Amino acid sequence: MTNPGNHPLLLEMRSAVELDLRKTIQLSFPESSRALQRMLEYHMGWTDDLAQGKRIRPLLLLLVHQILTGNWQSVTEAASAIEMIHNFSLIHDDIQDKSEFRHNRVTLWKKVGIAQAINAGDALFTLGLKKIWDLTDRLDLDLVRKSYLILNQTCLRLTQGQYMDLDFEKRMDVTADDYLEMIGGKTTALIAACTQVGAVLANARPEVELAALNFGMNLGLAFQLVDDYLGIWGKPEETGKSIASDLVEGKKSFPVLCGLAEDNTFSQRWKLGKIQREEAEHIANLLESTGAREKTKSKADEFTQQALDSLSQFAGSSPEAQLMEELTRWLLQREK
Amino acid sequence: MTNPGNHPLLLEMRSAVELDLRKTIQLSFPESSRALQRMLEYHMGWTDDLAQGKRIRPLLLLLVHQILTGNWQSVTEAASAIEMIHNFSLIHDDIQDKSEFRHNRVTLWKKVGIAQAINAGDALFTLGLKKIWDLTDRLDLDLVRKSYLILNQTCLRLTQGQYMDLDFEKRMDVTADDYLEMIGGKTTALIAACTQVGAVLANARPEVELAALNFGMNLGLAFQLVDDYLGIWGKPEETGKSIASDLVEGKKSFPVLCGLAEDNTFSQRWKLGKIQREEAEHIANLLESTGAREKTKSKADEFTQQALDSLSQFAGSSPEAQLMEELTRWLLQREK
Repeated sequence: MTNPGNHPLLLEMRSAVELDLRKTIQLSFPESSRALQRMLEYHMGWTDDLAQGKRIRPLLLLLVHQILTGNWQSVTEAASAIEMIHNFSLIHDDIQDKSEFRHNRVTLWKKVGIAQAINAGDALFTLGLKKIWDLTDRLDLDLVRKSYLILNQTCLRLTQGQYMDLDFEKRMDVTADDYLEMIGGKTTALIAACTQVGAVLANARPEVELAALNFGMNLGLAFQLVDDYLGIWGKPEETGKSIASDLVEGKKSFPVLCGLAEDNTFSQRWKLGKIQREEAEHIANLLESTGAREKTKSKADEFTQQALDSLSQFAGSSPEAQLMEELTRWLLQREK
Repeated sequence: MTNPGNHPLLLEMRSAVELDLRKTIQLSFPESSRALQRMLEYHMGWTDDLAQGKRIRPLLLLLVHQILTGNWQSVTEAASAIEMIHNFSLIHDDIQDKSEFRHNRVTLWKKVGIAQAINAGDALFTLGLKKIWDLTDRLDLDLVRKSYLILNQTCLRLTQGQYMDLDFEKRMDVTADDYLEMIGGKTTALIAACTQVGAVLANARPEVELAALNFGMNLGLAFQLVDDYLGIWGKPEETGKSIASDLVEGKKSFPVLCGLAEDNTFSQRWKLGKIQREEAEHIANLLESTGAREKTKSKADEFTQQALDSLSQFAGSSPEAQLMEELTRWLLQREK
């Protein structure tokens, strides 16, 4: 499957958002805190050629808006707002998880220290929660206010999901349902906010707004489960990670929690402690024999189907709607 | 001087804000993240009888609004918003400064770990930046939006001040002017936002809004300098700290930076390294002989006078205006 992210419309959207993000961060700091600005620029991937994020979230917001109005340009700032909020949460996540690398680059806290990185995250969060207000020179104040409140509520859900995620590391009794609730906050809430706000700013009817929200929510859930699947059964040459890397890292992902739900050879081994790289493939096979691989795939397929159903409820059959469907399938079918 | 904080009007304001804060935090978390809610309740001082903050910032906002409209009750939520933002910044500050105690209680990060405390701060920040929107059922949407944008801009200034503060610890070339710019972000911006928003929500004329802003700004600057003064020359029996405790802690406060501006016996000793408790009083005397005590006092008096002048420009001579003057003098003349 070719990457639809290279479609001319998506390339155009991505560069509009990138430009707006750069300008926003460039214009927000006085001389005395220029180094704080540079920290944000480093995290955003602008200080070297290595890696910017894929900016998936802005594209989802803009594409929903394009489908409903044909005028994505009028809400670029909302897409930037969400990308800044997403990146604020990455900066703080990396500190919380002690992650030293992201996209093959040293993480911000590892580069500037925990204290300055917490503060840089706070600055990016503040800018994100301001950005959407730039829309009031064009759009109705009530629509912007509604979108702001959705974003703010989403941020609260992010912290609730993050609380659970950190708590799960210490707990032995986490269930697959707990996990779905946790990713409902962590991964899903922000993706659902993208698609919902794209519709809200189009002044969409309630049933359209709801369908857009459901599209994003199911897309987010499916996306996380595909990630979990690939973290164990993905081909190293396609994921860029070692075999069953999530097992080696001890991640309590969805398939692992399915495997741990009963007493079996996988759960017996898991409880003995850290899994070594040499045994990872064997233990992935043990986990598969519990039915966890099939369960994860079928749950991911279920959410994918619900996402596509919700999409068809509001998107019609314009070229942009087809592009969104392609993008969705591409995001959710990475190599399985 | 008796503490005007016990005036019946201020007691009434304080308990209205406290009730609103408690309700807000109580209603914001689902069962699965109840422990996150408890972290905020611990930080706010509600889990034991030891110490809640003085809630000075909410009182300033409400009192400005009362002076201008006679109806402080209509903006309680704005006062809560600012108190939540203030406390978010304290939670993150304590991590950044590695402070283990605040008001004689163990700080949140020391109790729950850095990762969860960063997240709890993020949650409180989010709630603070939402709270002010509750006013739109009563007040004009444009006034609320303007107040929100002031708060948001203030948060950005907080991060800029915090960046400078953390950076100063490592630098040897900080000047007293750099320091005033830093506290302009850290201490002052939020106090100025209180008095400005109190006026904005009263739909005040521009000259009144500006006078209220200047009142808060000068009050904030004076407040910090009084704090710096007392941290070196305050009487232990009144400050509750040891003699010249800021010198022992190596704080680059305003008087220290005045002393370091030239070569003298104080600056020679400072450069030799950590000051011991036994020599603190002697070194405070060395610092005084450089003129730093007099400079700090006269700078604080200057800002105090400017604050009182600004207050008289918008406050008139109502009983509430007199109460605000009393509160200002009390905040700025603690024992000097």
